[in-house]
Amino acid sequence: MPEGTVTSRQVVLARYIQGLPTPEDFRLETVELPLPGAGELRVRTLYATVDPGTLTRLGGRASYAPPLAVGDVIAGAVVGEVVDSRSERFAPGERVVGSWGWREAAVVEARGLRKVVAGPEPVSAELGVFGIPGLTAYFGILELGRPRAGETVLVSSAAGAVGSVAGQVALQQGARVVGIAGGPAKCRWLVEELGFDVALDHRAESDLAAAIRRVCPEGVGVFLDNVGGAVLDAAIPSMALRGRVVLSGVVSEYGVPPEQRSGLKNTGHFITHRLRMEGFVVFDYAERFTEARAALGRWIQEGKLRYREHVVEGLEAAPAAFAGLFRGENFGRMLVRVSPPETRGA
Amino acid sequence: MPEGTVTSRQVVLARYIQGLPTPEDFRLETVELPLPGAGELRVRTLYATVDPGTLTRLGGRASYAPPLAVGDVIAGAVVGEVVDSRSERFAPGERVVGSWGWREAAVVEARGLRKVVAGPEPVSAELGVFGIPGLTAYFGILELGRPRAGETVLVSSAAGAVGSVAGQVALQQGARVVGIAGGPAKCRWLVEELGFDVALDHRAESDLAAAIRRVCPEGVGVFLDNVGGAVLDAAIPSMALRGRVVLSGVVSEYGVPPEQRSGLKNTGHFITHRLRMEGFVVFDYAERFTEARAALGRWIQEGKLRYREHVVEGLEAAPAAFAGLFRGENFGRMLVRVSPPETRGA
Repeated sequence: MPEGTVTSRQVVLARYIQGLPTPEDFRLETVELPLPGAGELRVRTLYATVDPGTLTRLGGRASYAPPLAVGDVIAGAVVGEVVDSRSERFAPGERVVGSWGWREAAVVEARGLRKVVAGPEPVSAELGVFGIPGLTAYFGILELGRPRAGETVLVSSAAGAVGSVAGQVALQQGARVVGIAGGPAKCRWLVEELGFDVALDHRAESDLAAAIRRVCPEGVGVFLDNVGGAVLDAAIPSMALRGRVVLSGVVSEYGVPPEQRSGLKNTGHFITHRLRMEGFVVFDYAERFTEARAALGRWIQEGKLRYREHVVEGLEAAPAAFAGLFRGENFGRMLVRVSPPETRGA
Repeated sequence: MPEGTVTSRQVVLARYIQGLPTPEDFRLETVELPLPGAGELRVRTLYATVDPGTLTRLGGRASYAPPLAVGDVIAGAVVGEVVDSRSERFAPGERVVGSWGWREAAVVEARGLRKVVAGPEPVSAELGVFGIPGLTAYFGILELGRPRAGETVLVSSAAGAVGSVAGQVALQQGARVVGIAGGPAKCRWLVEELGFDVALDHRAESDLAAAIRRVCPEGVGVFLDNVGGAVLDAAIPSMALRGRVVLSGVVSEYGVPPEQRSGLKNTGHFITHRLRMEGFVVFDYAERFTEARAALGRWIQEGKLRYREHVVEGLEAAPAAFAGLFRGENFGRMLVRVSPPETRGA
């Protein structure tokens, strides 16, 4: 290997994924990195996200984001440290958020990177509570759901990266917050640590619709849903007059062909109860991300907002962690720690 | 029979209806009418509506309107003539719209009746283009859908009482209008008589989603849907960015238990395309009904709005006509002519 050559391990798509992912759908490989050109940086990855939405791009079919090809590096948001810079905007040692995916190191364009403003929270928070999940929760509740004090807000995947923040943002608005999560540990965390009024363990309920009705006797004013499918359908009959359903994700649809989905069947309730259901993409609020991050950071400092990360160690652990997401195995935002800054140099 | 006694034939519910209706679910009977008390009127029916939504009240289960009991007269909007009045507001010979249902004559409270303002249209129009269907179309398009000039508006059940008006209201806004209807006669009427840009015959299309995509190449800005279920699901993938789905009815759900419904499965498209789906009940706009009727009447006079009625003769024909609705046998607003004013006295 010639002097100055840098290699990087990366995880690529080994084959198009049909249905839910398995670790065999991925391959770890080592590549040589080029030298950064003008306007480029070399970065080393600190944390990479393991995100369920990525699955929509791994089946070889078009989605709203372009599909990956076999051999492509798995896409995703990452936070890293600048090692070598040919951009005036960034200096070595600075930390940046980008989207170079599951790589130990990369040469990337400075354009499109966001500089991390140092604060009291660990840098991994840039991918969770200050990243797309936290921002999705913030705008989903405040701009689309708009709960009034005393209204019931229902959140699915409530112990997840979006749901946990959404519920706490709703609590700030004076709402009564009910979360749906899987298993007693997550439910306990929601109520005891985050202050949710009620947590419903969907694994312990044979009839989710009846359970939602039981714990939401006055109806649901806002339902922020990340799951779709049967969970969405189960909540609709409990929606209150003029209730708002905010769709921020449809994890239950990922990897499931339409004909196998359970579907939303209670559309009649939309009419009788004047419901509104709206989907959104958080990037539409990009101009307000700085404001939102400031508010979220303030709530964390004031003890009103807590978050949790589920960190796995090393790129090689990412494929199994990704597969586990679809079985609800994560408890908090799932991240892979790629190269701990204290042990590895550039 | 004592002097002065008036009898009336009426259609009652013979048994709770499971699934779709059959004529055997109804019974024709004759009753004696009481004399009107203070504040009451005796009316004779001119036209009664045969309305698919009534089915939701005939299964013995609660809906947004209270369910009927076995033996109850079938509910529905009616237009009639005052025969005998003990109210200062109404005089014999005046025409009123009420909701006394499938009866030849009735004694009803004056409160809650609407006086028909004579105009160039036949009185039956009070139950169609000037009634709930026409008003639903008007507010559904103008208040919820709000199409912009050049946007594509898709309407299901387009030859029906709501859909045909909705499409024409959208044409007034400069929209490109596509209707979905069953059979070539309805499709021809939509394009040749009403001026729809395209009519899709769902009976001639094996893949409705593909057909909608084919005729809406720039995407659907507004979808006014009366059908729900598979039709709704088929349209979603063709919705344009920030498209609005307005739900004014879910005929496909009536009489079909949730587990047998096909369901809305393309919820992911709500997120990627920032769709909004909203259900509504036209009575929320009751304060503006007079304004809406004036606008609809003006458009009719100007030749910009046409409507069609499907009239069956005699109360005894109502049950079979009702059953036929669910097979798409009507072509226009279905009404039963109960006692033609020219042949029968009070």
